[in-house]
Amino acid sequence: MIGSLAYAAQNAKTPLAPFSFERREPLPGDVLIDILYCGVCHSDIHQARDEWGGSLFPMVPGHEIVGRVRAVGSAVTRFKVGEAVGVGCIVDSCRACGACGEGLEQYCENGFTGTYNSKDRIDGSLRQGGYSNNIVVDEAFVLKVSDSLALDAVAPLLCAGITTYSPLRHWGVKAGDKVGIVGLGGLGHMAVKFAKAFGAHVVLFTTSEKKREDALRLGAHEVVISSDKKQMKAQANQLDFILDCVSAPHDLNAYLACLKREGTMTLVGVPDQPPAVQMFALIGKRKSLAGSLIGGIAETQEMLDFCAEHGIVADIERIAIQDINAAYERMIRSDVKYRFVIDLASLKAA
Amino acid sequence: MIGSLAYAAQNAKTPLAPFSFERREPLPGDVLIDILYCGVCHSDIHQARDEWGGSLFPMVPGHEIVGRVRAVGSAVTRFKVGEAVGVGCIVDSCRACGACGEGLEQYCENGFTGTYNSKDRIDGSLRQGGYSNNIVVDEAFVLKVSDSLALDAVAPLLCAGITTYSPLRHWGVKAGDKVGIVGLGGLGHMAVKFAKAFGAHVVLFTTSEKKREDALRLGAHEVVISSDKKQMKAQANQLDFILDCVSAPHDLNAYLACLKREGTMTLVGVPDQPPAVQMFALIGKRKSLAGSLIGGIAETQEMLDFCAEHGIVADIERIAIQDINAAYERMIRSDVKYRFVIDLASLKAA
Repeated sequence: MIGSLAYAAQNAKTPLAPFSFERREPLPGDVLIDILYCGVCHSDIHQARDEWGGSLFPMVPGHEIVGRVRAVGSAVTRFKVGEAVGVGCIVDSCRACGACGEGLEQYCENGFTGTYNSKDRIDGSLRQGGYSNNIVVDEAFVLKVSDSLALDAVAPLLCAGITTYSPLRHWGVKAGDKVGIVGLGGLGHMAVKFAKAFGAHVVLFTTSEKKREDALRLGAHEVVISSDKKQMKAQANQLDFILDCVSAPHDLNAYLACLKREGTMTLVGVPDQPPAVQMFALIGKRKSLAGSLIGGIAETQEMLDFCAEHGIVADIERIAIQDINAAYERMIRSDVKYRFVIDLASLKAA
Repeated sequence: MIGSLAYAAQNAKTPLAPFSFERREPLPGDVLIDILYCGVCHSDIHQARDEWGGSLFPMVPGHEIVGRVRAVGSAVTRFKVGEAVGVGCIVDSCRACGACGEGLEQYCENGFTGTYNSKDRIDGSLRQGGYSNNIVVDEAFVLKVSDSLALDAVAPLLCAGITTYSPLRHWGVKAGDKVGIVGLGGLGHMAVKFAKAFGAHVVLFTTSEKKREDALRLGAHEVVISSDKKQMKAQANQLDFILDCVSAPHDLNAYLACLKREGTMTLVGVPDQPPAVQMFALIGKRKSLAGSLIGGIAETQEMLDFCAEHGIVADIERIAIQDINAAYERMIRSDVKYRFVIDLASLKAA
């Protein structure tokens, strides 16, 4: 067994605290990774606090993992000791269904194995995430990471990056398109970068005038304050595609009105309350409302390669693991530009 | 001016009653049509009773019109006196915008001119619909109807027909697809016929066990009672496409669950209350919720030609114009199989 140090939630009510545990003995196809950095996703908070129900404790959160290969199993062919690698939200899937066959493990018909808050497909043990000094993952779910990028700022690509890259690609965003991005947080700031890199004209919607300057710096061509009816009206029927990155409850209909005929608005955040959709907003110009979940392994690798080629990383604030509970509170206040990333070196020092 | 007899609503509160008025003098491009039959659409009730707001009175409803050409203007090239013709929901549009250029007059960026409850684009007079003995329409908005079909049963094709045909075509329903149709009313029964004609495996969803036999007769391969959780569960992730033909408030999420990954559910009815959409129902398998409005003139002609080729018409109950108010009450109780069609010969006899 592999001894691991981590920060974990022992239950939904207590803060994260130091924790040591054992990971499964690496199988022939497994890669043992020393974790360097782990991004902090809002879903870490939801799961650590059992806000979605069914959380499995003790829980070591974290699914935006970058590290280096420490050891490989005898059957591993794609990775060597010392290489920079990443692990995202998925560490296993059935590998037999139609979705897995198409490289869409996130839609595995038998349910993918989450990086944490899930049970191992092989031995049934609790899978634990990246707020830890190491992790054991089947090589089929390990990503190659370029050393040309700052590895701490690469970490959020493994969830925030692929979650926004995948729908922008799936709905065919291309040069000349006019694309709306709703919300400038962890997801939204990556969506702005990708949409700009794909050549689109990017319109960033935000409730906060304070985010205007940053949005423009990150690549937006226009910033629309969504509470300003005049600004919203000026966008009516203008956008080919909208990626809505906001998880908090909000009025979808105001954004649907901004789509061109036959445009699609895709949500990647999950509001707690099901939003009310004015069907005439869809019927009037044959518009669509859609959803998208992370991305498959092959597309995640494509995204990481694209980022290496175009010099794209997340804007991050690096923290020590000891600051994780304070970081959660700041995230709940949207007080982060735009992703906390834990430096796991801090764990060893503890 | 052309003298017309009709039944009209004088305001939102009184029943329809006999009415005589004048239609505009035919222009060189106009066709004067003697109306034989007019289908009764649920939107006739909504507008006659001003349930959507903004109704223009006096109002002669009716936009499922079949008749014969009585006279043509000097510039008319496509129609001859005596030919069977149809008029649907649209009698004019800007003819200049992108939508009109693509033959999608229903999405005209400057607003199409409705067959009734609208103002004429040329002289600003009130346009009046098909509960009348004649109508004057620009030939660009007149459809050719085959005399090989029963003309009374053709009338509902002009709205119920194209409203269901268009989305089934737009979302590419084809042989081998598994398609859900929600609701077996005026729209739903046409959707079943079209989906079957396109070669799809048709699953009809209804709240009423009583409709099972009819649904099978009309072409459905399976009937699912939507209140039966076991039957609904058996359809989970099974359908390529769903056409939701229900206007009454209902739970969309139960149907979204029946879509396959990347499937689309399209609504053609407009519930009074905006339905609450569980976004995870869309996100979990990259599904879409969409809307569709009637269809353009070219596609309406394509649909009528398809119907002539395949012997498709609506299932109707023919009524005299004097029975229209009673028919409205029966429609509100869903007591019609599946469309009332007014025989306008009854008007002359009055």
